Amino acid sequence: MDKLTIIKVGGKVVEDSDSMILLMDHFAKISGNKILVHGGGRAATDLAKKLGIESQMVNGRRITGKDMLDVAIMVYGGLINKKIVAGLQARGCNAIGLTGADINLISARKRPVEPIDYGYVGDIEDVNSSDLRILLNENIVPVIAALTHDGKGNLLNTNADTIACELAVELTGHFQVFLFYCFEKKGVLKDPSDDNSIIHELDVDSFKKYQNEGSISTGMIPKLDNGFRAKKAGVKEVLITNTDSMTSGKGTRLI
Amino acid sequence: MDKLTIIKVGGKVVEDSDSMILLMDHFAKISGNKILVHGGGRAATDLAKKLGIESQMVNGRRITGKDMLDVAIMVYGGLINKKIVAGLQARGCNAIGLTGADINLISARKRPVEPIDYGYVGDIEDVNSSDLRILLNENIVPVIAALTHDGKGNLLNTNADTIACELAVELTGHFQVFLFYCFEKKGVLKDPSDDNSIIHELDVDSFKKYQNEGSISTGMIPKLDNGFRAKKAGVKEVLITNTDSMTSGKGTRLI
Repeated sequence: MDKLTIIKVGGKVVEDSDSMILLMDHFAKISGNKILVHGGGRAATDLAKKLGIESQMVNGRRITGKDMLDVAIMVYGGLINKKIVAGLQARGCNAIGLTGADINLISARKRPVEPIDYGYVGDIEDVNSSDLRILLNENIVPVIAALTHDGKGNLLNTNADTIACELAVELTGHFQVFLFYCFEKKGVLKDPSDDNSIIHELDVDSFKKYQNEGSISTGMIPKLDNGFRAKKAGVKEVLITNTDSMTSGKGTRLI
Repeated sequence: MDKLTIIKVGGKVVEDSDSMILLMDHFAKISGNKILVHGGGRAATDLAKKLGIESQMVNGRRITGKDMLDVAIMVYGGLINKKIVAGLQARGCNAIGLTGADINLISARKRPVEPIDYGYVGDIEDVNSSDLRILLNENIVPVIAALTHDGKGNLLNTNADTIACELAVELTGHFQVFLFYCFEKKGVLKDPSDDNSIIHELDVDSFKKYQNEGSISTGMIPKLDNGFRAKKAGVKEVLITNTDSMTSGKGTRLI
């Protein structure tokens, strides 16, 4: 089976233009089939603020109202996505920008309003990779924004880590998939205050142990849950790393 | 050669949600290969206003500053494009949203700053339809926002009528192309104050005559220039019409 690299880049990477340039430089050089999945970072919150849209938070999670959804569509699906596409094209990488609505790639269901109504947030129901594989086969490079659709005409906000995971899982039947979660640290840290305390290899038991000890930062937990789900489903390699180490294989390898 | 229908929808059609629904209903029913090209209408101006970005106008044309370009990318490339894609998917039409940067579809050159600096506006240099034809061949339906790129990483604002024309011209080598310019009137009017004074057939000589008489509204002139260019380059049929008549063949036929 052919190799496929899926890179997920997080908020802080896309927020900063220097790190974006670095990301595009590195990503363009990856050989073979590849997909980039990106979140939106603070840009959506900043735009919402300028437009006077209140960012409601419940238990530390943002509620996506109708106005906030439009902002997410504009920022993730438009501004960030298309700037990455144009940047990659300038680097000789034949990128195409997609959301989960395009080519019906990712269908989701609006999250139930009980116990908490998170608004226009989608839980993934199905990844339909047939047209995506046609693109890959033509050496077209998908750049995927963290939006899905409900099949009834509505876009939905969906976590980018989860999108990267579900894509990787769906594509394991067709490729040897390498999934990289890139963020601002060099890997998962044993001690969040020490950037060099990288855990080089992590299995589920140790992850649970670190979680119980409270040593892994809470922000890392959903990312690792997704990573272990992908690993268990047959994804060849899952690595938590930063943009610099994207291609070197350094970081935290899930085992 | 296979038939290809290219529909360009103008500002006022995408501004209004009822006319958008009608457009999507009609467009989804067109059989065979098809492409939708859309402008942005007032939505970009409205968003710019809310963000305190001044819309500078020179000779009745908008100057696209850096901030205004970001707004255009967000509104045309994000909000409007992705909502149409999700709406078409809900109607069983396998849509994909594109700008000229995606799959390197439309390269443009930033317009020279002399005599007037229009800012980030692109004049089309090349339409590269090879990957677009692969999409069409897979029954994927491109929905194209009025943005191009310069191949150096920059997106540029480009007139949607011109994009539709240049796409039609490029694709005449591969398809029997039918180009429809859809706007809010039933066709080109002999008397702009009388909605029923439709010119059913228009040739270049009559167009010049009407232009000299001042009877065709000035807004129609660039649209007709594009239409006649397409017709001359071998596009099978060019029709100026409204969304209702999109499929009936009513309107103004360029001959």
